[in-house]
Amino acid sequence: MFLPAGFDATPFRARRARLRERFAGPLIVDAGRPAPRNYPGNPFPFRASSHFLYLVGLPIDGARLVADADGFALEVAPLHPDDALWHGASASREELAAALDLPVRDPAAPTREAALLLPADAASRHVLSAALGRDVETPSEADLALQDAIIALRLVHDAHAIAELERAAEATVAAHRAGMAATRPGVHEHQIRAAMEAALRARGMGTSYNPIVTTRGEVLHENAQRHVAQAGDLLLADVGAETPGGFAGDVTRTWPVAGTYSATQRTIYDLVLAAHAAAVAACRPGARYRDVHLEACRVLAEGLVAIGILRGDPAELVADGVHALLFPHGVGHLLGLDVHDMEDLGDRAGYAPGRERSAQFGLGYLRLDRDLQPGMAVTIEPGFYQVPAILERPALRALAGDRLDTDELAKFADVRGIRIEDDVLITDAAPRVLTQALGRTAAEVEAAVGAGAG
Amino acid sequence: MFLPAGFDATPFRARRARLRERFAGPLIVDAGRPAPRNYPGNPFPFRASSHFLYLVGLPIDGARLVADADGFALEVAPLHPDDALWHGASASREELAAALDLPVRDPAAPTREAALLLPADAASRHVLSAALGRDVETPSEADLALQDAIIALRLVHDAHAIAELERAAEATVAAHRAGMAATRPGVHEHQIRAAMEAALRARGMGTSYNPIVTTRGEVLHENAQRHVAQAGDLLLADVGAETPGGFAGDVTRTWPVAGTYSATQRTIYDLVLAAHAAAVAACRPGARYRDVHLEACRVLAEGLVAIGILRGDPAELVADGVHALLFPHGVGHLLGLDVHDMEDLGDRAGYAPGRERSAQFGLGYLRLDRDLQPGMAVTIEPGFYQVPAILERPALRALAGDRLDTDELAKFADVRGIRIEDDVLITDAAPRVLTQALGRTAAEVEAAVGAGAG
Repeated sequence: MFLPAGFDATPFRARRARLRERFAGPLIVDAGRPAPRNYPGNPFPFRASSHFLYLVGLPIDGARLVADADGFALEVAPLHPDDALWHGASASREELAAALDLPVRDPAAPTREAALLLPADAASRHVLSAALGRDVETPSEADLALQDAIIALRLVHDAHAIAELERAAEATVAAHRAGMAATRPGVHEHQIRAAMEAALRARGMGTSYNPIVTTRGEVLHENAQRHVAQAGDLLLADVGAETPGGFAGDVTRTWPVAGTYSATQRTIYDLVLAAHAAAVAACRPGARYRDVHLEACRVLAEGLVAIGILRGDPAELVADGVHALLFPHGVGHLLGLDVHDMEDLGDRAGYAPGRERSAQFGLGYLRLDRDLQPGMAVTIEPGFYQVPAILERPALRALAGDRLDTDELAKFADVRGIRIEDDVLITDAAPRVLTQALGRTAAEVEAAVGAGAG
Repeated sequence: MFLPAGFDATPFRARRARLRERFAGPLIVDAGRPAPRNYPGNPFPFRASSHFLYLVGLPIDGARLVADADGFALEVAPLHPDDALWHGASASREELAAALDLPVRDPAAPTREAALLLPADAASRHVLSAALGRDVETPSEADLALQDAIIALRLVHDAHAIAELERAAEATVAAHRAGMAATRPGVHEHQIRAAMEAALRARGMGTSYNPIVTTRGEVLHENAQRHVAQAGDLLLADVGAETPGGFAGDVTRTWPVAGTYSATQRTIYDLVLAAHAAAVAACRPGARYRDVHLEACRVLAEGLVAIGILRGDPAELVADGVHALLFPHGVGHLLGLDVHDMEDLGDRAGYAPGRERSAQFGLGYLRLDRDLQPGMAVTIEPGFYQVPAILERPALRALAGDRLDTDELAKFADVRGIRIEDDVLITDAAPRVLTQALGRTAAEVEAAVGAGAG
């Protein structure tokens, strides 16, 4: 492990202490190990478990943070003598211990009753199952209690986490500006993605999830680039930075390839932007996030009724889920060390106790249903999409009936998909949009497109 | 699965037929599945097993190519109805079957005696172990026979593979040109890496391994960027493209940050280049690759004797492994769908039957010891490094004795690490350097540095 200059253990030591106040039993937080790409010697870049990063601060592959009655310690395997040839000089155990403010020792057999926070990689999970003599995929009572303790901590960001989210936001904004500047008709989606990623890489960062950079914005997770951007197309880019510490940015903008929205594109864009503004404004302490979602849906439905695509009472359309034919996903999710923060723990993290996913199409995709508190970070990302496979699904068509005017909708054929997404920190005062510096009005976006044309 | 326009099953069908001539028993070639990054919904970009890509041609996650007495079939799980919302329209099974020229069907319980070619991801391997009721990490006799059959095929590249290697080489050359052009004193290593990756991404490609872009070239696998490039530094970049079909490029250049090698840098650079030229020239059908490696070592040792860093007879220095204090790795490896082709199969792929790794420091890192045949692709990548942890290791210092003149070596302190690497296709005539278009003489490299300065 290379020790970055100026590493400060203070925030991580404080988090460990706070965890201990909530969970006093023996525990293991495994960092995970690199996942092989096509063979073990060619791994994906190592991404440590977010729980480990939260509590230790450095991505030490194969390490385990353990705690028992004597307190915390870090278990790290000794290096092979040739390691320095391949990976350079490593911090000694003494240096590591001093920097992390943690005892560092050789790996030991795990305590059988220890509670676990697991890394994502299957190999480490199998190693733990074998070592503990139980299937770690089925959490124990202690595991669940430890999960609840870390959820309580990570839900509310401390000053260090907020500073990291600010860094991620700054880089994410720069990437979107680079993408807009690189866009003009005839440029391949690949090239726009290249410009966006280069802005991150030049800051020493990568992406927190697989980028979406596409003229086919109606495909929600379109990770490939297959098209040349044409005049008349919209370019939807959902790209976020990851800081070296592991924190995520997550922003979407949808810009006109030729620099000007058509009248139909502009109409829908402004509707989505109104839903976005209403949802951001609703992000107040005490607000239930599902209500933030429903407020965005209501504003969108109102607008769609006004232009004739939907018919009926907006509140009723939303209650019935008719809007979801055009806005099928949730308005956002938790943001932190994971772009969907703590999604590894499932709805135990995203949903307050006693709340469950809706069975309704659309609302069932909402990843977060907690009451907001100061220090929480969420995304706000309403959208509008024409997805043939959704619009043609018989059950959904029957649900909509004549409340969806497909003739009116057809007039908006040049709007395949629009999403506007920002990162929002809940505060005691007004919600703070971490990605505020990136303009989002139609005029602001238009002004930024093609600015890199030479 | 999205079906790329113009996909042609012909080369893959031919490979399947040739495999069947060598291995007639039941078999399973598992594509693998996406590896989670920090949670299952946020995976690394899917990279299918190279064996699967070789035989099927498309990265279909979760799929298995199976063969029994009735011939080949592809097993693919049915899609969830909402899949089109997230991933867009997929090819129907009929379209997939027609495009691949393979029957496509639902997954079935695997044939217990089937021979396996495994993907790299631990999750898929555990699923196979459970389904077959045996630990697939311990290969069966049938597994080994199937491995030998695929090794025989993949060792000698067909026309399709050569065309893919040419595409990878073209993009890799472009990335290095972009890196050289972006380099000048004061630029961070991050920015040079960004320029190189952007050149790949703009072609719809990524990297075939984690890039090395560093002013600390003596750290062989330095995957982080921590430094601002300074006048006087050398910048070592080991970066290769991966085509959408999965084939790899693998090139290293070492250029002067300020555009001109110092006299000491130039001296060592020219020595490494001479070793490179000698090794490339030795890549003839029938040549034993270990001899190609030793030829590079001999030329390097000769040069180091001539300038006074080593003392003694070059052949003896190489036989004793004294040169390895300064050139500790092998001169190259197989290249194909994997950057170290078929390294998942271990030395069964890289070493001819009856040959084994040397126990000697340096030679023991040689990844390939086969007799070369037309159609094989290898890298040639001699280097020179001053690695403190190697030069100070007592056993190695004792081996060298007064044959290493550390005072002379100290005069070359501004040469931390130099490597020159190209991709070479063995032919009946002269070896063909696939990456020939990228200049490698000191003058050619100097002319390319900073060309992007504005």
